[in-house]
Amino acid sequence: MYYIGDAFLETVLKEDAPYGDLTTDLLGIEDAPGSITCWPKADTVICGAELAARLFEKVGLEAERSARDGQRLAARTPFLRARGTAGAIHAVYKTAQNIMEYCSGIATRTAEMKSAAQAVNPNCRIVVTRKHFPGTKTLALYAAHVGGAVAHRTGLSESVLVFDQHRTFCSEDFLEHLLRMRRLDPERKIAVEAADAAEAIAFARAGVDIIQCEKMPPGLFAETCARIKSECPHALVSAAGGVRADNAAQYAGAGADFLVTTWPYFGRPADIKMHIEGEPARKADGGL
Amino acid sequence: MYYIGDAFLETVLKEDAPYGDLTTDLLGIEDAPGSITCWPKADTVICGAELAARLFEKVGLEAERSARDGQRLAARTPFLRARGTAGAIHAVYKTAQNIMEYCSGIATRTAEMKSAAQAVNPNCRIVVTRKHFPGTKTLALYAAHVGGAVAHRTGLSESVLVFDQHRTFCSEDFLEHLLRMRRLDPERKIAVEAADAAEAIAFARAGVDIIQCEKMPPGLFAETCARIKSECPHALVSAAGGVRADNAAQYAGAGADFLVTTWPYFGRPADIKMHIEGEPARKADGGL
Amino acid sequence: MYYIGDAFLETVLKEDAPYGDLTTDLLGIEDAPGSITCWPKADTVICGAELAARLFEKVGLEAERSARDGQRLAARTPFLRARGTAGAIHAVYKTAQNIMEYCSGIATRTAEMKSAAQAVNPNCRIVVTRKHFPGTKTLALYAAHVGGAVAHRTGLSESVLVFDQHRTFCSEDFLEHLLRMRRLDPERKIAVEAADAAEAIAFARAGVDIIQCEKMPPGLFAETCARIKSECPHALVSAAGGVRADNAAQYAGAGADFLVTTWPYFGRPADIKMHIEGEPARKADGGL
Amino acid sequence: MYYIGDAFLETVLKEDAPYGDLTTDLLGIEDAPGSITCWPKADTVICGAELAARLFEKVGLEAERSARDGQRLAARTPFLRARGTAGAIHAVYKTAQNIMEYCSGIATRTAEMKSAAQAVNPNCRIVVTRKHFPGTKTLALYAAHVGGAVAHRTGLSESVLVFDQHRTFCSEDFLEHLLRMRRLDPERKIAVEAADAAEAIAFARAGVDIIQCEKMPPGLFAETCARIKSECPHALVSAAGGVRADNAAQYAGAGADFLVTTWPYFGRPADIKMHIEGEPARKADGGL
Amino acid sequence: MYYIGDAFLETVLKEDAPYGDLTTDLLGIEDAPGSITCWPKADTVICGAELAARLFEKVGLEAERSARDGQRLAARTPFLRARGTAGAIHAVYKTAQNIMEYCSGIATRTAEMKSAAQAVNPNCRIVVTRKHFPGTKTLALYAAHVGGAVAHRTGLSESVLVFDQHRTFCSEDFLEHLLRMRRLDPERKIAVEAADAAEAIAFARAGVDIIQCEKMPPGLFAETCARIKSECPHALVSAAGGVRADNAAQYAGAGADFLVTTWPYFGRPADIKMHIEGEPARKADGGL
Amino acid sequence: MYYIGDAFLETVLKEDAPYGDLTTDLLGIEDAPGSITCWPKADTVICGAELAARLFEKVGLEAERSARDGQRLAARTPFLRARGTAGAIHAVYKTAQNIMEYCSGIATRTAEMKSAAQAVNPNCRIVVTRKHFPGTKTLALYAAHVGGAVAHRTGLSESVLVFDQHRTFCSEDFLEHLLRMRRLDPERKIAVEAADAAEAIAFARAGVDIIQCEKMPPGLFAETCARIKSECPHALVSAAGGVRADNAAQYAGAGADFLVTTWPYFGRPADIKMHIEGEPARKADGGL
Repeated sequence: MYYIGDAFLETVLKEDAPYGDLTTDLLGIEDAPGSITCWPKADTVICGAELAARLFEKVGLEAERSARDGQRLAARTPFLRARGTAGAIHAVYKTAQNIMEYCSGIATRTAEMKSAAQAVNPNCRIVVTRKHFPGTKTLALYAAHVGGAVAHRTGLSESVLVFDQHRTFCSEDFLEHLLRMRRLDPERKIAVEAADAAEAIAFARAGVDIIQCEKMPPGLFAETCARIKSECPHALVSAAGGVRADNAAQYAGAGADFLVTTWPYFGRPADIKMHIEGEPARKADGGL
Repeated sequence: MYYIGDAFLETVLKEDAPYGDLTTDLLGIEDAPGSITCWPKADTVICGAELAARLFEKVGLEAERSARDGQRLAARTPFLRARGTAGAIHAVYKTAQNIMEYCSGIATRTAEMKSAAQAVNPNCRIVVTRKHFPGTKTLALYAAHVGGAVAHRTGLSESVLVFDQHRTFCSEDFLEHLLRMRRLDPERKIAVEAADAAEAIAFARAGVDIIQCEKMPPGLFAETCARIKSECPHALVSAAGGVRADNAAQYAGAGADFLVTTWPYFGRPADIKMHIEGEPARKADGGL
Repeated sequence: MYYIGDAFLETVLKEDAPYGDLTTDLLGIEDAPGSITCWPKADTVICGAELAARLFEKVGLEAERSARDGQRLAARTPFLRARGTAGAIHAVYKTAQNIMEYCSGIATRTAEMKSAAQAVNPNCRIVVTRKHFPGTKTLALYAAHVGGAVAHRTGLSESVLVFDQHRTFCSEDFLEHLLRMRRLDPERKIAVEAADAAEAIAFARAGVDIIQCEKMPPGLFAETCARIKSECPHALVSAAGGVRADNAAQYAGAGADFLVTTWPYFGRPADIKMHIEGEPARKADGGL
Repeated sequence: MYYIGDAFLETVLKEDAPYGDLTTDLLGIEDAPGSITCWPKADTVICGAELAARLFEKVGLEAERSARDGQRLAARTPFLRARGTAGAIHAVYKTAQNIMEYCSGIATRTAEMKSAAQAVNPNCRIVVTRKHFPGTKTLALYAAHVGGAVAHRTGLSESVLVFDQHRTFCSEDFLEHLLRMRRLDPERKIAVEAADAAEAIAFARAGVDIIQCEKMPPGLFAETCARIKSECPHALVSAAGGVRADNAAQYAGAGADFLVTTWPYFGRPADIKMHIEGEPARKADGGL
Repeated sequence: MYYIGDAFLETVLKEDAPYGDLTTDLLGIEDAPGSITCWPKADTVICGAELAARLFEKVGLEAERSARDGQRLAARTPFLRARGTAGAIHAVYKTAQNIMEYCSGIATRTAEMKSAAQAVNPNCRIVVTRKHFPGTKTLALYAAHVGGAVAHRTGLSESVLVFDQHRTFCSEDFLEHLLRMRRLDPERKIAVEAADAAEAIAFARAGVDIIQCEKMPPGLFAETCARIKSECPHALVSAAGGVRADNAAQYAGAGADFLVTTWPYFGRPADIKMHIEGEPARKADGGL
Repeated sequence: MYYIGDAFLETVLKEDAPYGDLTTDLLGIEDAPGSITCWPKADTVICGAELAARLFEKVGLEAERSARDGQRLAARTPFLRARGTAGAIHAVYKTAQNIMEYCSGIATRTAEMKSAAQAVNPNCRIVVTRKHFPGTKTLALYAAHVGGAVAHRTGLSESVLVFDQHRTFCSEDFLEHLLRMRRLDPERKIAVEAADAAEAIAFARAGVDIIQCEKMPPGLFAETCARIKSECPHALVSAAGGVRADNAAQYAGAGADFLVTTWPYFGRPADIKMHIEGEPARKADGGL
């Protein structure tokens, strides 16, 4: 269960409407009854609908949801509806839409990438990096999860991944450092980024659990994978750096155990229609 | 001055490294001295460098910055450097990079759009919507500001913008509603979204201050603009919905007073190189 | 809809009773059943009743409300009642009372000022400044809204208001600065504070949207207003500085489009009776 | 030491300027150098100057303070000065002013009340209630402290004060309840609110430590005080409800050990002049 | 009523499962139905069960509670049960268990100490210090309250307790300082820590309300108590420093009015069994 | 680097002294100069000294630290000193002491356990669970890290550990579930708790990475370890449940790769002397 708290909902709600909704108030339609219905404009893996429903309920709307986060919906399939006053609808609908559009965008791209990879290599996994827009970690990881990915790492405190940027601080005997880490932390796999095939093989031979091949062209990656797998069958090999939906199949087909990607995090939000329908307020007596 | 508080810096720092940095610690390089130097990989409007420098200082690094947020830098121009221990550098560099890459991406796209528009219509302004990824409002608006835009509205509490979604709740005499708003709130301009040329003209005639033309093709927009400007010279006309860098010139050339856009918010983060260089730790005695 | 989150309710509740209620506990009456009924001691525009009801419910009381925020109630009209245990009642009633008394005070003063102004000039609006007690922005703006005012500005990020304190940094050609602002931000009206009649006229002629006359005596203000309105019929004129309920009619009658005021924010809280009635606990066995 | 954290400063700063300062930016004066000097317009007990100085420094101004919070300053005595850019000055000066004006107002009224009381009864203390505007507890108690008061109670968790609203839940033998409290909590004095002289005497005889006389006219209060003091010399007597600067001397002279008051919390903020002086920006090239 | 807010529950929940529960998800059992039942493994004063029930409900479980916090339960007595999905149960059960085990441990130790003391001196009270683990104040004071103690002081802002560490800053005439405090703050008792019998007597004679005897062996304490009580019958005497369940009776029997202790705060958490029972998921289709 | 933010320091400071320090203020010693010196009363692994120094500096003291967190200090070795006013010292010293005492207690117990284990099995690691007192996660994990442990898991979102409580929801073919997890998440080791030797062997044979033996007596554990290691040399074996310093050597000697423990989290805080020395205030003029 990926629980996202009410505090988040209140924060985003307050960020968009810290001191009420001026337009709705000046129009004098706060109490007018109406409804809102949501559907994707294109084929979409829906994400954020549960949060949207909670947002609706927080301001007093009655919400009804007919799809779970993670379902793929055909264009124009309504999946969320709420009823109540114009005041409540206008206070939250854009925030709800933003959450759903950005999250569904990530989920849909993640699913697309996963399909592409698993079509050629059913065991190849999609894992997403921590290179999300600061401030979106909870939503971004949630959306990737909903789309079928696992978090590569949620941060620095829980996994071991050695970059070039670490090596520059290490003494000459770098492999020695790596072996030492294995002893010091038996619970976690040791992953090391490799810049070329030679390095990759050397790390695998040294007993590194995961060789993360950074920005290797698919051809070279395939070759490196093959050598590692034949010499060190227990080592895992991943492709990272520039892996996207359009080349996922190549890396997956080349034998990657998993693909490390940032790509789903950015790109167009999905398009979710927020159809609002009102019963015109009979008496336009303003909020003021 | 666009002040972003230390609380934000601590939040993002803690989000990425809530309980320390396992890799650096297990490698035993925490105290090794080194430096980090940042430069854009391509021509970029830098944004977030001031926050990055403050992040560096927060963990005890000495930072030096040679560019201000908003400057356009040629590829490979170093603009930020910091020195200190490997432990401090690794605790924050990726977070600093994420901030700079996402913000610089937004700032650069905003600037691109502004140039395109102002090349044909020097008075045409770029204004950015509130359709940013929830959780990024402060950074997203900051980056757009740095790129040369103004916020269309920071939320619902401070401006008047009437959508179709409001009209559905209004009684038949919609123009009456609009006039009433003008009286009720003399301090703010009244903006109304128009779906077609007829509506746009009608609103302008009714005395609406700003006619926001939603998803109008450039040709129709030009025509509508011309009619409004000739009949109601005081009315302002904006284009919204699908306005991007690649069509900004068309809308600007058609006479838009400003372009309302969400486009800079998403898209690839800029590429900022974080070059880390260490002096190998003489004694690899681990953190454990 | 002016949504105020649960986080606020929890903060004020915890601020007053961070570690329980010692008195009620030591008296051994925590579980004794009872009720609380609220009424204003004088004619009052009620504000905060909705928050009070939510506070009551948060600690498990059953609340019933018979008036909406913004209603004017005659003295001694009950509008809110709750039932439950003495423990729950005592945990929140004073906090609920404080919210209602301060907010109703502001709402009532705002309404008083509005009545005074609109009696002589039905189109004259009351707008409240950002000079509230730091820490009360959400409640203070809410209460003013409930009393019939609009926020002059919610802060620095969303409106354009030029003070003397800006002019001191401007080059000689101040009017040039003002014109430039109009071009740079077409979406917002440009307001400028004027210290005397000559300045006011000059700004209006230069095309400034709103002339805010600071601390002008009513007579001079009337004269200035008249001159601006005759020369620049589109310019709006406001009175600011020392505008209160007792002189609002003078400024409104002098032709002000709106009155900018801080006055409702301070002054006596309204007097709300919190009548608590218990059924004596049959067995006074203490909490300890 | 009454420490108020940076988190508070950042909250109020962000509340007023969440996304920068539009006016200063559009005027193109962000970097223009200048200074700000603060002085009270009338004789004032200054409060909040230390926070104001920290606010100034937070945005990069250099601040110099020549008075401590709690000092009484004659009208027009400068006590705080800061230098830096127009951008930084405008980002915080109004927030700094609001803090100082509201806090100095409370401190000055508290000091006035204390002087009045102690002129006739040097041992009579001023204690302030928890009836402050929700959201201002830290500042309100600080300002009262600076003005010479002690907190009556900081909340429900740390002191024992029995109201009528408790008694309604108690069994017939109310004095029994009071005695029981004394045994259960030996560390705190037991205070009980008395509505009339008879009650007051009865409580004192029962051994209650503090008799809080609620809304008793000064004459009756004097009489009650005298009787309690003669019969129960150890009991303390306080006056509460409607005690203000203008009647403090009467209650103090009547023998009150301390006066419980809410009065300093509301009323006009003090008037603090924020004199800003700039060196006109040589080149008015705008922020955009 | 000791209200602990939802914000706390969300914080601890998020701290343990910031981005979902990987294990449950990968096992594909998220939606499998089941139940959880809680009982103490030994005789225990239950504390935290109300929070645990609220945690369960927060994630959608249906909870049923058959004991109140503060009840002493025999080993193996079920007191809390919840039903729902495996996903929801696993998201919170360990956090709920931690709260209940640490709180029940404190409550049980407090109750043990109280029984020991009151067996020999029924009026002797247990009061707990502010030396809890930073971050646990709300829970630690709550658990001690549930176990039958009162807070010695909730912090520095609400009580007067003079230590040696204060005296080192006082001028020679220390007793003069103490008398002055009595005058300055009539509402609170003045407590002073005494290091030996002579000091204790001197303070009592000077009129100090509470003599806190620090780390006095029981014999000496008894003697000191006796002398104070005979000379200054109104003075209260407490024992502090090293007071635990195993010597509480000695200090209580020696005449202590109350025992000041930190001892309940640390020590083994209570053992609460969280018995989870599932109905095996029929189809093990994973979360991915 | 294990960065703990200023927000934490402000929170604990405010929790202890939300509205100033009454005692110091009433004594009139706020401005008296003095110093504080800290030393352990017994041989201690110091932890929290860096936070204490930052707390001191936050209130304006000048701090000097002569030991790093993690150093073992002999009894009575001063390691931290600060100078400044009595007001500042008293505002924070107890909070600083609490942090250091609880953290040093955990660090010292962790180090003790590590020494015991590694004396017989130098490769055996200590890993600490997430069963800390809710609210102390950051400090508890930091102190364990400083004492030489690694976090077993920082929460549910980043590691895979299957308990009996999961198995109850799984279909009959439990091993199938485990294999599926391996495929779904190649990056993390799969750990499974085993209740007896048979289970342990079965899991190891199925390819589980880590067999966590729960509450196995040392003898049985040794036997189980031996069988696993001989049959499945790549499998790791850990002991969990009731592992403490006094039996760590037994489990380590039995071949455990690591010991999973909660034991360091509770138990007596270390004893840190906070020696405060003042220069008596010359003039005892009170804060009031």
